[in-house]
Amino acid sequence: MSIKLRPLGDRLLLKRLEDEQTTPGGIVIPDAAKEKPSRGEVIAVGEGKALDNGQIRPLTVKVGERVLFGKYAGTEIKHEGSEYLIVREDDVIAVLES
Amino acid sequence: MSIKLRPLGDRLLLKRLEDEQTTPGGIVIPDAAKEKPSRGEVIAVGEGKALDNGQIRPLTVKVGERVLFGKYAGTEIKHEGSEYLIVREDDVIAVLES
Amino acid sequence: MSIKLRPLGDRLLLKRLEDEQTTPGGIVIPDAAKEKPSRGEVIAVGEGKALDNGQIRPLTVKVGERVLFGKYAGTEIKHEGSEYLIVREDDVIAVLES
Amino acid sequence: MSIKLRPLGDRLLLKRLEDEQTTPGGIVIPDAAKEKPSRGEVIAVGEGKALDNGQIRPLTVKVGERVLFGKYAGTEIKHEGSEYLIVREDDVIAVLES
Amino acid sequence: MSIKLRPLGDRLLLKRLEDEQTTPGGIVIPDAAKEKPSRGEVIAVGEGKALDNGQIRPLTVKVGERVLFGKYAGTEIKHEGSEYLIVREDDVIAVLES
Amino acid sequence: MSIKLRPLGDRLLLKRLEDEQTTPGGIVIPDAAKEKPSRGEVIAVGEGKALDNGQIRPLTVKVGERVLFGKYAGTEIKHEGSEYLIVREDDVIAVLES
Amino acid sequence: MSIKLRPLGDRLLLKRLEDEQTTPGGIVIPDAAKEKPSRGEVIAVGEGKALDNGQIRPLTVKVGERVLFGKYAGTEIKHEGSEYLIVREDDVIAVLES
Repeated sequence: MSIKLRPLGDRLLLKRLEDEQTTPGGIVIPDAAKEKPSRGEVIAVGEGKALDNGQIRPLTVKVGERVLFGKYAGTEIKHEGSEYLIVREDDVIAVLES
Repeated sequence: MSIKLRPLGDRLLLKRLEDEQTTPGGIVIPDAAKEKPSRGEVIAVGEGKALDNGQIRPLTVKVGERVLFGKYAGTEIKHEGSEYLIVREDDVIAVLES
Repeated sequence: MSIKLRPLGDRLLLKRLEDEQTTPGGIVIPDAAKEKPSRGEVIAVGEGKALDNGQIRPLTVKVGERVLFGKYAGTEIKHEGSEYLIVREDDVIAVLES
Repeated sequence: MSIKLRPLGDRLLLKRLEDEQTTPGGIVIPDAAKEKPSRGEVIAVGEGKALDNGQIRPLTVKVGERVLFGKYAGTEIKHEGSEYLIVREDDVIAVLES
Repeated sequence: MSIKLRPLGDRLLLKRLEDEQTTPGGIVIPDAAKEKPSRGEVIAVGEGKALDNGQIRPLTVKVGERVLFGKYAGTEIKHEGSEYLIVREDDVIAVLES
Repeated sequence: MSIKLRPLGDRLLLKRLEDEQTTPGGIVIPDAAKEKPSRGEVIAVGEGKALDNGQIRPLTVKVGERVLFGKYAGTEIKHEGSEYLIVREDDVIAVLES
Repeated sequence: MSIKLRPLGDRLLLKRLEDEQTTPGGIVIPDAAKEKPSRGEVIAVGEGKALDNGQIRPLTVKVGERVLFGKYAGTEIKHEGSEYLIVREDDVIAVLES
């Protein structure tokens, strides 16, 4: 699904994934109230983090990966009728490997 | 449209774009109250961000691109009867690719 | 126990260890109320800390080591029915050598 | 108009320009109350910004240019009966090109 | 007037100058209440500002120069019956050239 | 006394020393209430402070040395029935040379 | 007077000097209440300030020099029945040259 929206710098465009209750192999997060992190799929990534020395460090997270990120992180946007979230890579705490 | 106003450093001069409700391919932001980011077109860009090591890093956003930026970012100005906004590149979260 | 969850950057995935009361050679932390640090086992480690100069500095803590970390550090997550904690390496104050 | 007052470092000496209401080609800022930036002419510039690596980076703004700067920026001084303002270059958001 | 007191690092030893009301060529600061900067003469200067890279950057302000500095800057001291002020060079906003 | 607990990074493992009242050559700290620093013996030291440039700077304080450190510094832990303190080297203000 | 107490890093060990009222050539600080800085003699100096690049920059203040320092700076300690103060070099504002 190619999307005509390019996150800038060290930001990622995410599609939220349901906080599944119980799945055979997925994440179990019944009590979302307890500040548990949220899950999302990476739709697009920025060009990287601009460093003080002028270099750009590419992001480690890849398009298509599913990630865990801080509950209150990021900015919500709507594009072509769908909701997305733009977060900084530093807000991503882990990658869920399939 | 050349404008006789040059933003300084890592700043951009933007012309606000309407927060369209629904468009075939544009951004849908009905509930502006929900802190959704704003949209604008880049009219002029500064020479770049001055780094601690003396280099100037050019901006990645180009004149003519449409961008998403933080709702409360920037400073409003009026020039030749039109309203503009001056924001720092770091306030721009994504570029809308046509 | 391989787990399909990769902590990002300078973060560690920990499994909490009981705050044993008294053991022949273990840690004695009877009055947990006195802000004593918590204990955990390292399940997975991130790729390292991204430095300003573009380098990645590997973490010093290894998978399988038991560590002491600040009582309020980290983010709790649930994965495949088990509780884990994701902390930054800087929150780890010591390694318990067997 | 040479003035015997040399701003230090990354500072500029400005002469405030009237916030013209409407001019054929000037800036229109009728509702000054809405935090719109102020305008001024650059009278003198400091030697540049001292960087951590010991270099001095010259300022980009030149004597004689007209600039837009933050409403509350700078320090007011009086010299030979006239009012001036001393601001840091970082407070200048744009240059008005004639 | 040599004084047996050496300011340290990026500090200056100043002798306050009267906030003259009106002089043919001097500074006019009638309403001191309006936070106008103060004036002083440089009596002694420190060896320079210690930079993160180990270098010492000499100060740009010279002994004997008259300067403008922030109203609330510096520390007052008395030495051999006279009052002086010790300020950091960064608090000096301009040099009054005779 | 070798202890199976390795402090991490720029941290030290200390054993608190009594705040002796008066000793022929020791420290006299009768009024502990007056925020006087505490004393301790260095039991173990971390590998060093991780610098921004990727280097690790070894600690200057050695195992076996007696040190003065800030009254409220560090985290208390219990290990094999004994109380210890883990502090950052920057909290140590002086070394007591025998 | 050699003392068995070595200040760490960029710290100095000072012996407070009386805030003399009036002396033929000394410092006059009658109204100590007016936040005037305190005076002290340097008894011992640390090895220097650890810089981000791994270097240690030696201190500029020498043993035996008399210095002016901020009124509320430093930590008080008692050693062999005498009171001392440990301050950071950055708290020292000037050296009194005899």
